[in-house]
Amino acid sequence: MPLTGQLIVGFARVSTAETFDAVDAASGAKLGPPFSVAGPAEIERACALAQAAFDPYRTAALDLRARFLDTCAESILALGDELIARAGLESGLPRARLEGERGRTVGQLRLFADVVRRGDFLGVRVDPAQPERKPLARSDLRQRKIALGPVTVFGASNFPLAFSAAGGDMASALAAGCPVIVKAHPSHPGTSELVAGAISSAARACDLPEGTYSHLAGPANELGAALVADPRIKAVGFTGSRAGGLALVKIAAARPEPIPVYAEMSSINPIVLLPGALKARTEAIATGFVNSLTLGAGQFCTNPGLVLALGGPELDRFLSLAGEALAKTAPAQMLSANICANYRRRVDHLASRSVSLVARGLEAGGGSVGSGALFVTDAREFLADRKLGEEVFGPASLAVRCRDMAQLAAVLEHLEGQLTATLHLADDDATIAARLIPILERKAGRILANGWPTGVEVSPAMVHGGPFPATSDSRGTSVGTLAIERFLRPVCYQDLPDSLLPPDLQSGNPLGLRRMVDGGYTSS
Amino acid sequence: MPLTGQLIVGFARVSTAETFDAVDAASGAKLGPPFSVAGPAEIERACALAQAAFDPYRTAALDLRARFLDTCAESILALGDELIARAGLESGLPRARLEGERGRTVGQLRLFADVVRRGDFLGVRVDPAQPERKPLARSDLRQRKIALGPVTVFGASNFPLAFSAAGGDMASALAAGCPVIVKAHPSHPGTSELVAGAISSAARACDLPEGTYSHLAGPANELGAALVADPRIKAVGFTGSRAGGLALVKIAAARPEPIPVYAEMSSINPIVLLPGALKARTEAIATGFVNSLTLGAGQFCTNPGLVLALGGPELDRFLSLAGEALAKTAPAQMLSANICANYRRRVDHLASRSVSLVARGLEAGGGSVGSGALFVTDAREFLADRKLGEEVFGPASLAVRCRDMAQLAAVLEHLEGQLTATLHLADDDATIAARLIPILERKAGRILANGWPTGVEVSPAMVHGGPFPATSDSRGTSVGTLAIERFLRPVCYQDLPDSLLPPDLQSGNPLGLRRMVDGGYTSS
Repeated sequence: MPLTGQLIVGFARVSTAETFDAVDAASGAKLGPPFSVAGPAEIERACALAQAAFDPYRTAALDLRARFLDTCAESILALGDELIARAGLESGLPRARLEGERGRTVGQLRLFADVVRRGDFLGVRVDPAQPERKPLARSDLRQRKIALGPVTVFGASNFPLAFSAAGGDMASALAAGCPVIVKAHPSHPGTSELVAGAISSAARACDLPEGTYSHLAGPANELGAALVADPRIKAVGFTGSRAGGLALVKIAAARPEPIPVYAEMSSINPIVLLPGALKARTEAIATGFVNSLTLGAGQFCTNPGLVLALGGPELDRFLSLAGEALAKTAPAQMLSANICANYRRRVDHLASRSVSLVARGLEAGGGSVGSGALFVTDAREFLADRKLGEEVFGPASLAVRCRDMAQLAAVLEHLEGQLTATLHLADDDATIAARLIPILERKAGRILANGWPTGVEVSPAMVHGGPFPATSDSRGTSVGTLAIERFLRPVCYQDLPDSLLPPDLQSGNPLGLRRMVDGGYTSS
Repeated sequence: MPLTGQLIVGFARVSTAETFDAVDAASGAKLGPPFSVAGPAEIERACALAQAAFDPYRTAALDLRARFLDTCAESILALGDELIARAGLESGLPRARLEGERGRTVGQLRLFADVVRRGDFLGVRVDPAQPERKPLARSDLRQRKIALGPVTVFGASNFPLAFSAAGGDMASALAAGCPVIVKAHPSHPGTSELVAGAISSAARACDLPEGTYSHLAGPANELGAALVADPRIKAVGFTGSRAGGLALVKIAAARPEPIPVYAEMSSINPIVLLPGALKARTEAIATGFVNSLTLGAGQFCTNPGLVLALGGPELDRFLSLAGEALAKTAPAQMLSANICANYRRRVDHLASRSVSLVARGLEAGGGSVGSGALFVTDAREFLADRKLGEEVFGPASLAVRCRDMAQLAAVLEHLEGQLTATLHLADDDATIAARLIPILERKAGRILANGWPTGVEVSPAMVHGGPFPATSDSRGTSVGTLAIERFLRPVCYQDLPDSLLPPDLQSGNPLGLRRMVDGGYTSS
């Protein structure tokens, strides 16, 4: 189906009078068609449909919900090259990256289909009745988790496929049993429409209620704000800037009924180079670092924006090698002119503070391209200047020279919450590493050894989350199967007749779920 | 140890210049000793100690943490009758109830000790490395949940033992690995000091860090507000009024780093009498209802404050029987003069709206005693007047006469979030019940059939929680073993050498935990 520029409200394609344009990320040229802007009528209709869909969708059989997620994956693949081409124009991301991202998007939908089929996420617990217990009989108690309600998901600029119209937040919310209203990111409305059309037809093909999925677009913040404020919306998924995420958190907290906001916001992802590793593998670490820093023009939430090490000849050699490698790195197309302008402004701002330039990547004549930047400063300066710890979205990083391990630990303690923290260590660094790990546990959602934080596996054990302001709610992850738990709440059923219980809880365990019985686990 | 009126800051007993008095609930007379009021210095010291204790406490062996919880239970029992006597004076609750509450308090500490020993709450997930995977190798990923940080727990007026200085919130937070600072409820400071002394000596006996537990008291809201605002506090547990809970939620949301607040606030716990059940068991239901309504002077969060049924002779008969039983019920001592005055004011307010009085319980000459009250109104009035759906804390309830099942369902849809919702049903009510259950699932944390919501089992499957405003966060429960999850967040470890991993995650599984490996469960 060709692009129409229409909104998708339930099963209906809707045009509105007001439109906005998609833009070619590289050239800045307008791309057709004009895209309809969602107004109050479309928001109202999408929320009403989502509310009406909630009970039938969440109470539908798990097998159907799983089949829907699998069908979403197939429908996205069926879009074929048109999707990759459009995403390339709108995001400026290269084809190989987008094909990989499509694989991840489809893979995570299928992974959540498996999670739904398996049913462990329901967290079923059964405390059988003890009618003879003294002094009081115990009732029959059965617990499971149910969906929170309709969820608003915001498309992310840096993942036009894997964190947008059918990305990780959407997949985990639908898997949990929540209808979803996507607010498309205005920098890739065409990509978003194509994907949303695929999800909408998957919902129709699976005979799901109309409001299971809607897709609204618009260039202004008002649309997202209205969705988050709507009383029918019960949770929010967001990946983007700190200012954007905090604005949504504020709206959600000010509602008569506050709701959870899962905003993944900002992180500088400290890399700690411990002395043994730095000495033994200077060159390999420098190469790995520059590769991670410049991957995807540095436009990852997990980009390594901070490097900590003890001052000395090894660090000097690392900086010199990393600087040399960076200086040879070509500038890369960024996601939008706006993001590129912000990146340049933030790099200039960083350069204006108490830091020294180690190296810049190659510069280009023009266009929205970003060239790498590496700075260095002392721990004392870093500790004295909060601004040095702020995220620069793009391929920029700051190395911090520490006097000793105590000062390095102090720098870590000084950091805000992070998505990741990485240790490079050799065998003789083990004692120091063991001392730092408790700090890193408090600061980050994922701790890596001898690797790079870019590249986030979608799997059961992944955590892509972390203490504020990495996210607005450290109790969740937005990547990996645990993400489903963000959209669930527990309900207990006391003495209900078996025939009125959902199959998940019935005595015969017809779904064959793994259940906790009397505090212990059983598979029957 | 006799009462001193002192605060317990870490292991130190602290007196301050400003004091407040405990009061005999029945007589209103002052009870000695004067109790020290915690000021900024004590708050600062307690928070600093809690922060310092966090890493050593949370990383101590699970066996030690479990032993600590068991020791807390023993230390509370060792207080003997002095505790029951003091709690009786301060709360006005009868001995049998307090002995039962002590049993519950001790029982839930031991239950959480078992949860800690078992270790399932760590939610360990292992995704083994796949070095040969194409196109990209997979890293070794291991996930577990760790404690959020120091927690502030507010003592509750209506559970001087089970939800106060060593109650459910404290037990679940300590079990999760969080140091706890208790803000004592000012209506039972002596009870609270006795219990806190027991916990503090248990912490010393187990050689735990000093800041694992502190106990602050004071009559004003400023103390609690300062604790919730302190940047070292990472979560809050509260049971109390809606106004009190919302005030804490607001403070927590306004922090530079917002934190979770688990406030259990208000609920009217609808009881739906379906036609078949009402006809078949009018008398039994009326008796059960009045017993539940007047239990503990109606001072339970789960008190049945709303009864829904179809209008007709069966409902009239139920009201008449319930009214007769209530009219014979003696008034009961309430928790405090303040709570009693509020109760009377709320009952008068209810009586002033479009409702009819069915019956009042027996009145007393004086004192802080509450007499039962049952009113009736029509669904149309109820739907038109939000005030009729507000909680009255005490033994008052409102019956709502509905025209038909559609109107009854509309009343349920109209309700705010609830802790519980109860169906009384007979076999021939099954079809109607099945239609109502999805509504109740959206509205409440616990759904009961043919029982009464008062009496909350402390067990794995219990949910004492629910949608706003029953609680400020429907994702948790404050009673039962799932309560531990409120104080945890996931952390992922990527490619860490086995020797640097905590034992929960090591390859050999030295703790013998049940772990999810590659998405499936294993016990080894």
